Amino acid sequence: MADSVGASLHTRLTRRFDLTTPLALAPMAMGSGGALAAAWAKAGALGLVGGGYGELDWTAREYTLAADALAGDAAATHRLGCGFISWRLEQDASAFDWLLDQPARPAAVMLSFGDPTPWVRRLRDRGIAALCQIQSVAQLQQAVDAGADGIVAQGGEAGGHGARTDGARGTFTLVPELADRLAAVAPETLLLAAGGIADGRGLAAALVLGADGALIGSRAWVTTESLASTGAKAQAVATGGDETARSGIFDILRRKNWPADYGFRAIRNAMHRQWEGREADLRADPEPAIALFEAGVKSADFDRANVTVGEATGLINDVPNSAALVTRMTAEAAALLP
Amino acid sequence: MADSVGASLHTRLTRRFDLTTPLALAPMAMGSGGALAAAWAKAGALGLVGGGYGELDWTAREYTLAADALAGDAAATHRLGCGFISWRLEQDASAFDWLLDQPARPAAVMLSFGDPTPWVRRLRDRGIAALCQIQSVAQLQQAVDAGADGIVAQGGEAGGHGARTDGARGTFTLVPELADRLAAVAPETLLLAAGGIADGRGLAAALVLGADGALIGSRAWVTTESLASTGAKAQAVATGGDETARSGIFDILRRKNWPADYGFRAIRNAMHRQWEGREADLRADPEPAIALFEAGVKSADFDRANVTVGEATGLINDVPNSAALVTRMTAEAAALLP
Repeated sequence: MADSVGASLHTRLTRRFDLTTPLALAPMAMGSGGALAAAWAKAGALGLVGGGYGELDWTAREYTLAADALAGDAAATHRLGCGFISWRLEQDASAFDWLLDQPARPAAVMLSFGDPTPWVRRLRDRGIAALCQIQSVAQLQQAVDAGADGIVAQGGEAGGHGARTDGARGTFTLVPELADRLAAVAPETLLLAAGGIADGRGLAAALVLGADGALIGSRAWVTTESLASTGAKAQAVATGGDETARSGIFDILRRKNWPADYGFRAIRNAMHRQWEGREADLRADPEPAIALFEAGVKSADFDRANVTVGEATGLINDVPNSAALVTRMTAEAAALLP
Repeated sequence: MADSVGASLHTRLTRRFDLTTPLALAPMAMGSGGALAAAWAKAGALGLVGGGYGELDWTAREYTLAADALAGDAAATHRLGCGFISWRLEQDASAFDWLLDQPARPAAVMLSFGDPTPWVRRLRDRGIAALCQIQSVAQLQQAVDAGADGIVAQGGEAGGHGARTDGARGTFTLVPELADRLAAVAPETLLLAAGGIADGRGLAAALVLGADGALIGSRAWVTTESLASTGAKAQAVATGGDETARSGIFDILRRKNWPADYGFRAIRNAMHRQWEGREADLRADPEPAIALFEAGVKSADFDRANVTVGEATGLINDVPNSAALVTRMTAEAAALLP
């Protein structure tokens, strides 16, 4: 960490949330628990708990864990937040409701995959910043109209869920095009880049492409504090960036009823390859495959269980703790920029 | 061009080819003719004529046109080169053969889409630099073993042909992963980024991600010297980055027999949308659609004719001449970097 001395990158994002680096932890369902979110907040980044599917028990436990871990550190507490899946909130908003009444008020709530409008309205009523993740330029206006404080531009490289439509965009072009559009229609709105960012080069590239900061998923999933299993992290370290794919296969196997516009990127393991191009067959008779999959999850057999990382897995070669990772990424980026 | 004073970016690429900016013109078939390649070479970039399908007449005419335009300007002449499609050279190498005997020896020849090995060997025998374009990390070793002087890392954002396989990569992750791999196995080999780069932000991002320079396709296609039609350029200016797609549709309509691993990205116009998801039907009975398509090309009806740009079309808002464009991109990038 010695090389981090003097390395700092200040942007509109860091000023807005009193961060020491323009990084945010992606609110990864089942990955971004309280320990990980607290570690990122302590390290000077925005730490978003993965509220994910909106289940109250999980989110309340993990958010409370983070808030407790940060108690007494006011600066870090003000960097804590949470993320939700918008279409899922329409079915169950209990965790969202719970969060808004917490004494440790979230600094920001991120909304992904669906219409954010009603949730942004409720956040704004409480003075909580709303970050809306989108995957195309076409989705921008809805988020701006809803009143988003920040836009997260997610390219198709990202692990986990992302756009599956024909118009799916790469991070490299989506970020500058959204930056131009925001400059024209909502210049005060922040822009974060997401998808494929796993080191200081990626952070620096996100900034020069026009983002105010970067949201980090896969790279954070492979840290000591992440809730991903040790074996899954090792698999991500061992796997190159060519070896992931986006599809609906793992959602069927995990009994997740995602809208057809979205797919799930993970390592393209044997179970995935077996069903590629045959999703309709799998959907028609899923139970035998689900039994095999669930047994694979239980036995940590990653030929069957999903390892949820994106193309950036080819840039992930270790399992650091979050403080060391954030420091390293920040220093690397600072060395590349004026 | 006043803002370009003092703006220069020197990398291993500029030193290798005596360039004044780390940019190369993509050798776009039917787009990168002699006038465009000469304009890029004069502007200080590597100017690659689009040898494309290897037809002798077209390539000889356009390469000669460029060489004549640069006659008397030794520095610019040494920035002239050509590109070919490797699988097509296996059927017809007449233009490649012709090129190797020219008095205006190409500075570099780029090979894309197929095994470059025999062509690289012949280039090396003549002392001509070989640039090999790849779309995945898996393709790297073959190009290195062949003896490539430079690798062009093409992300899926690119217009025209690119990888269509499930492992298709984005520019944002492919470039740094290849940079790391090259540092380990072939540190002297140059790396260029391609796909989605259309302004100084993109050039700067390519450099911080680890590339020695950037290969520019769509953005160069929409310049005054490009052989694309005026109407097609206007269509690209008017179209956002969400509105392109990669498929085999336009290859069928243009009677191009591409290997299944590659697809063609262009604006997703009415003709394209009509056949999406029905390529097998189109391939089974193509003639009626081909007749409509060819009539559309003749009448400059871009609801039918292809407009061959990638996701970067959302960053293209004008039709500059190449000198102004190269100057602007270079100055923008220089302002973003140390």
